[in-house]
Amino acid sequence: MANFKGHALPGSFFLLFGLWWSVKYPLRHCWKKGQAGGRHRPPKFFNTIDFVEGAIKIFFAFVGIMAEQFVPDGPHAHLYNSEEKSWVKLMNWQHSTMYLFFGISGIADVLTMSPLPVPLGLDRLALSLALFVEGFLFYFHVHNRPSLDKHIHSLLLVAVFGGSASTLLEVFKRDHTVLELFRSSLAILQGTWFYQIGFVLYPLSGPQWDLELHDNIMFITMCYCWHYAVALLIVSMNYGLVWFGVKRCLRRQLGDIEISLKTTLNSDTSSQKALLQDSDEE
Amino acid sequence: MANFKGHALPGSFFLLFGLWWSVKYPLRHCWKKGQAGGRHRPPKFFNTIDFVEGAIKIFFAFVGIMAEQFVPDGPHAHLYNSEEKSWVKLMNWQHSTMYLFFGISGIADVLTMSPLPVPLGLDRLALSLALFVEGFLFYFHVHNRPSLDKHIHSLLLVAVFGGSASTLLEVFKRDHTVLELFRSSLAILQGTWFYQIGFVLYPLSGPQWDLELHDNIMFITMCYCWHYAVALLIVSMNYGLVWFGVKRCLRRQLGDIEISLKTTLNSDTSSQKALLQDSDEE
Amino acid sequence: MANFKGHALPGSFFLLFGLWWSVKYPLRHCWKKGQAGGRHRPPKFFNTIDFVEGAIKIFFAFVGIMAEQFVPDGPHAHLYNSEEKSWVKLMNWQHSTMYLFFGISGIADVLTMSPLPVPLGLDRLALSLALFVEGFLFYFHVHNRPSLDKHIHSLLLVAVFGGSASTLLEVFKRDHTVLELFRSSLAILQGTWFYQIGFVLYPLSGPQWDLELHDNIMFITMCYCWHYAVALLIVSMNYGLVWFGVKRCLRRQLGDIEISLKTTLNSDTSSQKALLQDSDEE
Amino acid sequence: MANFKGHALPGSFFLLFGLWWSVKYPLRHCWKKGQAGGRHRPPKFFNTIDFVEGAIKIFFAFVGIMAEQFVPDGPHAHLYNSEEKSWVKLMNWQHSTMYLFFGISGIADVLTMSPLPVPLGLDRLALSLALFVEGFLFYFHVHNRPSLDKHIHSLLLVAVFGGSASTLLEVFKRDHTVLELFRSSLAILQGTWFYQIGFVLYPLSGPQWDLELHDNIMFITMCYCWHYAVALLIVSMNYGLVWFGVKRCLRRQLGDIEISLKTTLNSDTSSQKALLQDSDEE
Repeated sequence: MANFKGHALPGSFFLLFGLWWSVKYPLRHCWKKGQAGGRHRPPKFFNTIDFVEGAIKIFFAFVGIMAEQFVPDGPHAHLYNSEEKSWVKLMNWQHSTMYLFFGISGIADVLTMSPLPVPLGLDRLALSLALFVEGFLFYFHVHNRPSLDKHIHSLLLVAVFGGSASTLLEVFKRDHTVLELFRSSLAILQGTWFYQIGFVLYPLSGPQWDLELHDNIMFITMCYCWHYAVALLIVSMNYGLVWFGVKRCLRRQLGDIEISLKTTLNSDTSSQKALLQDSDEE
Repeated sequence: MANFKGHALPGSFFLLFGLWWSVKYPLRHCWKKGQAGGRHRPPKFFNTIDFVEGAIKIFFAFVGIMAEQFVPDGPHAHLYNSEEKSWVKLMNWQHSTMYLFFGISGIADVLTMSPLPVPLGLDRLALSLALFVEGFLFYFHVHNRPSLDKHIHSLLLVAVFGGSASTLLEVFKRDHTVLELFRSSLAILQGTWFYQIGFVLYPLSGPQWDLELHDNIMFITMCYCWHYAVALLIVSMNYGLVWFGVKRCLRRQLGDIEISLKTTLNSDTSSQKALLQDSDEE
Repeated sequence: MANFKGHALPGSFFLLFGLWWSVKYPLRHCWKKGQAGGRHRPPKFFNTIDFVEGAIKIFFAFVGIMAEQFVPDGPHAHLYNSEEKSWVKLMNWQHSTMYLFFGISGIADVLTMSPLPVPLGLDRLALSLALFVEGFLFYFHVHNRPSLDKHIHSLLLVAVFGGSASTLLEVFKRDHTVLELFRSSLAILQGTWFYQIGFVLYPLSGPQWDLELHDNIMFITMCYCWHYAVALLIVSMNYGLVWFGVKRCLRRQLGDIEISLKTTLNSDTSSQKALLQDSDEE
Repeated sequence: MANFKGHALPGSFFLLFGLWWSVKYPLRHCWKKGQAGGRHRPPKFFNTIDFVEGAIKIFFAFVGIMAEQFVPDGPHAHLYNSEEKSWVKLMNWQHSTMYLFFGISGIADVLTMSPLPVPLGLDRLALSLALFVEGFLFYFHVHNRPSLDKHIHSLLLVAVFGGSASTLLEVFKRDHTVLELFRSSLAILQGTWFYQIGFVLYPLSGPQWDLELHDNIMFITMCYCWHYAVALLIVSMNYGLVWFGVKRCLRRQLGDIEISLKTTLNSDTSSQKALLQDSDEE
């Protein structure tokens, strides 16, 4: 699917998940801190969300594999053409493989949230592996292409392998808000960058880009940083909105114990910081 | 031993160990969780298993070294031919060296399980070193070969160095189930990939592969991911079977305290998860 | 700004921050240890300092961006010249991008010190990202230049990526004095090295350097190590001075409980060391 | 000093330190475990040892710098020959720089053991830096040499950077016996490998090695692994001897409480292992 759509599709997936994570993790973080005063709603709600997220991941991966296989110019599940003695549409097969591992990650999510005795951290390992496989296949994907094409795809690898490494850390440092926000921002970066690749390699309007000009490579490198700055902005805005929303929601519910809660919400940060500093020193 | 057998042999070793680990670690993990209610059988059983495993590793390494040295076209312990002024069968010597370090890893396993005051984690460090040495020698092994031959061997390095890094982590995070399952899956991957290398470079039947065709390289890269997907499937199936088996076995033994245990087994996961989350936040 | 000034400017920024950190962190470290006996001054003072530091970072980043954009031969906020179909002054745009991420790091500092519920460690992650972006852009910066020019810039990357990795560690090991001192020394190294680059590429007096001579590359590599030795010397001298100053200041304030304090200050190290060793062993 | 002696000298230093460490750390480890029953001798003895070790390091570094500068064909502290417009004996200057950083590491050792409030872990960071600088300078050292010469030096880098990384870990995991033994073995490897480099490049007797023959490179790679196997053997033998010695020494001293101690020494390992496993699970 070497066209604009073929890049917009995975881009949309990553963008959606990135945006969703940049809402979910702040929500969970703020909720916990708000609940420090009350503790009246169980965290089951968040487990259900994770369950649904895993199911959606499996569904998307399934749709992705089917789309790659059965588009009109796809391989239709044929791998080897023994008459022509050649492989059939290896690009589509590679994309299917990437989707497969995201599907496996979805299965791990669902299993972790199920009552089965799955060891904790398996979902993060599976996500890390899915990102690693994506980067691994992309790395050998861009052989024999013009230099800008190569460069723009290898920039993507920074987000992919960065995300894989950061998610691997989450296996050991679960529920570390900073790591979760970092992962969200990298997912948004991947999403917007897929769109950027589409715009550069298959411009919807205007002239083609010169794929060998060194200035274009320099611009694209810088542009990548701007994408990330925007991703950081989006994540922090979502964080702010969620925090504001949770604060209002909790205030309305709790009514009379408002004052004490307000104090908690405001002073919580610094006290928690002090606590953390203490525990680090020990 | 540049033939099919020469790849099937180490492949079988890794496959066997991978499969065995994918049974042993879930067994230990599930047993511990099941015992949380009872605590009536000492963990000595598992120590004995580790002891035997180390002894088998030493035996296999010894057999491997002997085979490499004394096969008909082997070096027969001659290193330098001073008449021809050349090294004798360096390939076999390199393979012997790899086996040697797996033997050292076996010795470390045995010593760790002995009553000697061996510092904890030495067995994992030795295994990590054995894998590192394997990868290190392979890295300089594939000089001056056709590109598919080079590529198919360097893909192996991903599993080897990945396994080495993951085992190194276990020095510090001992008995971390996720890491142990990850190691098992990488060992299975190595095993099946050795077979795949054998099938590709020395096909038992059918035509030879074109070792310079780029499409073949692309297919092999993707095929590597499929091997890993299968390895993950095997590990998770073994985990499921072991969990089911332990559950049944414990239920039969305990008889009257069945009900409480069942509850424990089912609710244990979520409660342990909650515990872990709490301890992470602190 | 490919001239001496263009390298002295960022060099001064890093040098200033490095020197400041090499005073701030020892001050905080010694203060805490001195207070172990008294505990009468709140740590608010240090929070204010961090707040001001963040604000200064934002200000510097803003000045840097403006300077890069609106110097006489700058791009004046024009990115693309559609008449000549070429990008406008990409170098200046790249430098602006670097400053932008240091500005973001400043914002993260300010937010972390504000009463908002920002997750702890975000300021360190933002600084780590700013350094990573700096290194990332520099990495693609030095294409097609003479070999000494390339080499002298890539040596800078060692300090930049080293600083980025060390700051990333601080996300998880906050207030770890060794890491903080290490970061200070790397910032000083960056600062003095920017000056060195300026002196080598645009000598103020004397003959030009031969940019292709291998001996010059060898000397510069060694010179880089000397810079770092000097940076280490500066950091350790500052540490010594701060420790001496804090000791005197505390002694004067406390008056009558002097003797007990003095004992604390002297014996604190060894007892803390013993404590730490104990906690490591557990 | 491009001759046999020039490689034997640093080789002897590393070998001595490696051997010494492989005695010191097991001694400390076994002593602690033996003392668990008695606790009658303070750990001051070991602090004094570390202090002396640091002083010896400073002395060796000083001797090394002087030797490199004032050997008959050395630079005699002249850096630039303004008549010939060339650098003077850059090789010797580079070696001096390496020694300088090992001297700094010695100073850090001495300061850490002094009653000054030096943050814990600085000595390990300084050693890690000294090894890093050694590797860093070696990396740019071997430009334009025959392939075997390049290869044999770059193999050294594996031990150097491996040692640097492992020592960096010790900043955070202080007194981790496995890491300390690993560092000892890498130091011994460096020591013997320096000798090997000397024997290969400047053979004392017999014919010169063919520096371009691929078989020689393959043999040397394997030979490196054998050196490490020997280093591991030495470390484990020293560990065994020390453990045996400490056991006998404690038994003689304690006399009547012998029996209880003996039990402690034998059962200590397993109980400590169980303890460690428990603490890991928590």
